[in-house]
Amino acid sequence: MTDTLEQYAKAREALIAEDRRLRRDSSREPSEDELKADKVVRDIRAAEAVSVWGAEHPDIPHPFPGMEFLTGKSVIVKTEIFKILSKMPKGGLLHAHLDATVDVKCLLSLAYKHPALHIRVPDAVNATSVHTVLPEFKAFPKQAYSEVHELSQSPMQWVQLSKARDNFPADLGGAQGFDKWLTASMMINPSEAYGTHNTVAKIWQKFTNTFSVASCLTRYAPIFRDYVKEFLLTSIADGISYVEPRINFRHRFMDDVDGNECVPHREWLVMFDEVLKEVKEDLQKQGREAEFIGAKIIYTTLRFITPEELTWYTEDCIALKKEFPHLIAGFDLVGNENELKPLIDYLEPLLQFRERQKEEGVEIPFLFHAGETFGDGTEADMNMYDAILLGTKRIGHGKASQINGNLPRTGNCFGSVSNIVLVSSEVTGLVQLAEVARDSIKYSMLEPEEKQRALESWERQWAKFVKNVVA
Amino acid sequence: MTDTLEQYAKAREALIAEDRRLRRDSSREPSEDELKADKVVRDIRAAEAVSVWGAEHPDIPHPFPGMEFLTGKSVIVKTEIFKILSKMPKGGLLHAHLDATVDVKCLLSLAYKHPALHIRVPDAVNATSVHTVLPEFKAFPKQAYSEVHELSQSPMQWVQLSKARDNFPADLGGAQGFDKWLTASMMINPSEAYGTHNTVAKIWQKFTNTFSVASCLTRYAPIFRDYVKEFLLTSIADGISYVEPRINFRHRFMDDVDGNECVPHREWLVMFDEVLKEVKEDLQKQGREAEFIGAKIIYTTLRFITPEELTWYTEDCIALKKEFPHLIAGFDLVGNENELKPLIDYLEPLLQFRERQKEEGVEIPFLFHAGETFGDGTEADMNMYDAILLGTKRIGHGKASQINGNLPRTGNCFGSVSNIVLVSSEVTGLVQLAEVARDSIKYSMLEPEEKQRALESWERQWAKFVKNVVA
Repeated sequence: MTDTLEQYAKAREALIAEDRRLRRDSSREPSEDELKADKVVRDIRAAEAVSVWGAEHPDIPHPFPGMEFLTGKSVIVKTEIFKILSKMPKGGLLHAHLDATVDVKCLLSLAYKHPALHIRVPDAVNATSVHTVLPEFKAFPKQAYSEVHELSQSPMQWVQLSKARDNFPADLGGAQGFDKWLTASMMINPSEAYGTHNTVAKIWQKFTNTFSVASCLTRYAPIFRDYVKEFLLTSIADGISYVEPRINFRHRFMDDVDGNECVPHREWLVMFDEVLKEVKEDLQKQGREAEFIGAKIIYTTLRFITPEELTWYTEDCIALKKEFPHLIAGFDLVGNENELKPLIDYLEPLLQFRERQKEEGVEIPFLFHAGETFGDGTEADMNMYDAILLGTKRIGHGKASQINGNLPRTGNCFGSVSNIVLVSSEVTGLVQLAEVARDSIKYSMLEPEEKQRALESWERQWAKFVKNVVA
Repeated sequence: MTDTLEQYAKAREALIAEDRRLRRDSSREPSEDELKADKVVRDIRAAEAVSVWGAEHPDIPHPFPGMEFLTGKSVIVKTEIFKILSKMPKGGLLHAHLDATVDVKCLLSLAYKHPALHIRVPDAVNATSVHTVLPEFKAFPKQAYSEVHELSQSPMQWVQLSKARDNFPADLGGAQGFDKWLTASMMINPSEAYGTHNTVAKIWQKFTNTFSVASCLTRYAPIFRDYVKEFLLTSIADGISYVEPRINFRHRFMDDVDGNECVPHREWLVMFDEVLKEVKEDLQKQGREAEFIGAKIIYTTLRFITPEELTWYTEDCIALKKEFPHLIAGFDLVGNENELKPLIDYLEPLLQFRERQKEEGVEIPFLFHAGETFGDGTEADMNMYDAILLGTKRIGHGKASQINGNLPRTGNCFGSVSNIVLVSSEVTGLVQLAEVARDSIKYSMLEPEEKQRALESWERQWAKFVKNVVA
């Protein structure tokens, strides 16, 4: 019996090791410090599983460690685990839609700085409509500032943003109520995400709304500049050393300071480039240049344009790549896959795009969204096949089918994801998160020598972080 | 360009075909009738996606085709798809816990037939406690029937079931309220499953409660007999031609007609065998013998017994297998994997069990539950490794890890599952469901020649069903 038990123990160890190996390329041996830090984090996780997740939280039904981030946020952000992870060097942020990267309150405070900005609503704002009515924003030249000073009495009438705020009805909460209303119109709250809007169609409608309200503001050139800066700075503060944001180029022009729709795409990139330089110079002055490698843009348009229209965008993308080769990382088409056009509809212009790149001597990899929503045999699922056949370098989401094989997949929001991954799996520890961070650099669209530099720099930051955790 | 498009179309077709092939062994070519029936079902599904699932259903928030069965039941059972699937020959039912197979209302009506049955409750039943208080049942010999005639006034006091029902307080709904209360105590309702009890720990507590109330009744020998018969008849009516129920043998005795706890396991099997014979004879008289091959029992005990106690059960199982070789299909241990003992705790008695089988010249395959709850590196997950190392022939659930590879997995309740599988995937059609049904016979514990006979019989039923769908 003892023999058999020993044999069993050996076979068991081998099977578990084999299974774990399948998950990750574990050719790398963790350092002693890494193992120690890993242990520290596992111990904290085990302690918090009881002290935090075993306790009652009056406002949160059914709290558990790997719960939905939005519902559990107030508890999650207070955990030691989350605090440690906030400081972790995270590598590259490969999946972010620029319009949704910056805190909404911060976006609003950027907007309040511009007296030229006006607001209007399609219906009168009152206690009932305030939950559903969506605002529009637009800048005007000084001589055209509106004479109307109150929003609630004048649907479809432009009002200066600051005046509308100052004169927002007291029964709707005054200026604070105004902030709250605008914030809600640009955010998805937990009860919407998991309650009232918990179907793909409904949450996409809400997504579309929040994007359309927020992008009204981010398409105002003076805000765009501040917004990009805020995005870069908060990413760096979160331990991210490289970003590859998707920018939506569907609108051909941004509004200039006076609200004229006349700022073309190349100006967007000029602004982006200037802000990027500013941020890097500031870091250099502080001796922190190792923390941030840089940023590249994924050129994005939306899945509802016609195949003919797409050709305008692919040509535009080629022209931008030629002028800003260091800034354009790739090309993508986004939007609700269940409602909008499947990739196959764009086959001809996409193949042409590839040909045209050869003619122009540029290379713009596809980095397609595909299989974002669960499905099996649906169009979202078919998009996976087409993304692969078109040679996509990465898949955005890629949940639908099992076909994606060895293609790197990216999801949104490293900050909360690394927390969920860590707390909901007993297998995952710091060592595994480090591999994910390394992968995020490996699968970035950095040039080979940039990538090498980014990896080396990350390894140094990581070693420092690990030492801190142990201490 | 045309050339390229043609090449693309070919590559696409090949990729999709390859991916679909990975899903199922599709060496079998569907017949012309099967293809026609498949088309009929796909057309109905597409029509009902609009007519049923596109409509508003006042009582059902967010209806969609693949929704949770309990919430959507009232709509699902009215669909044409569901009606067609109800008649489909489904092959074997390989995952069923006997205590939870028969409709609760039917179980109650079986109980009401026995004047010997008494009921008691730990607390007074009133408008508040009625939602939580759990009843116990027990039979008594005639001379010991209780003198108390009302339940609500006498906690812990036995009352005849029929009297308790007749005298149930009017403000709690009288006899109907009594039925409702007992039914609720043995069922999980949708708001519990997806709302108030939506964590693993809470739903398991509710599971345990419903099982303990129901098994109070099913462990009364006169009911057990009727219950097994009802289980077999409803399975046959559902198009199931073979069943492999798990019976919980944890209690060493059932109660006899007078409530004496004295009916040993071998008597349970005698009763089961007698009922099985009755049912088969009845079918033969009706010329329907081809519809039902038979039944075998998976011997089951619970994961909270000690390893020493397990040896009593494995010896008991061997003795039963020797006396009823045709009835014992395998061995399993069940219960909440997150709370109870992992398989590894039972390693020694389980290995001994295998040795003892060799000595006694019997073969009792392991058919373990493992990885029933989602997890990663948890004990539920480790159970998967041990189930595999112990040579389990099938995995019950097996959701936790990716390790299960090619082992056949079984889930509960074919009736609703085949509906969900069909309506939530555009890939799945009748042809794919037929493969699942064939697999259910292939992976059953039938003897080779029984299996052959079951398959041939199933193919005949299937051909008939397909013809009916086409017509």
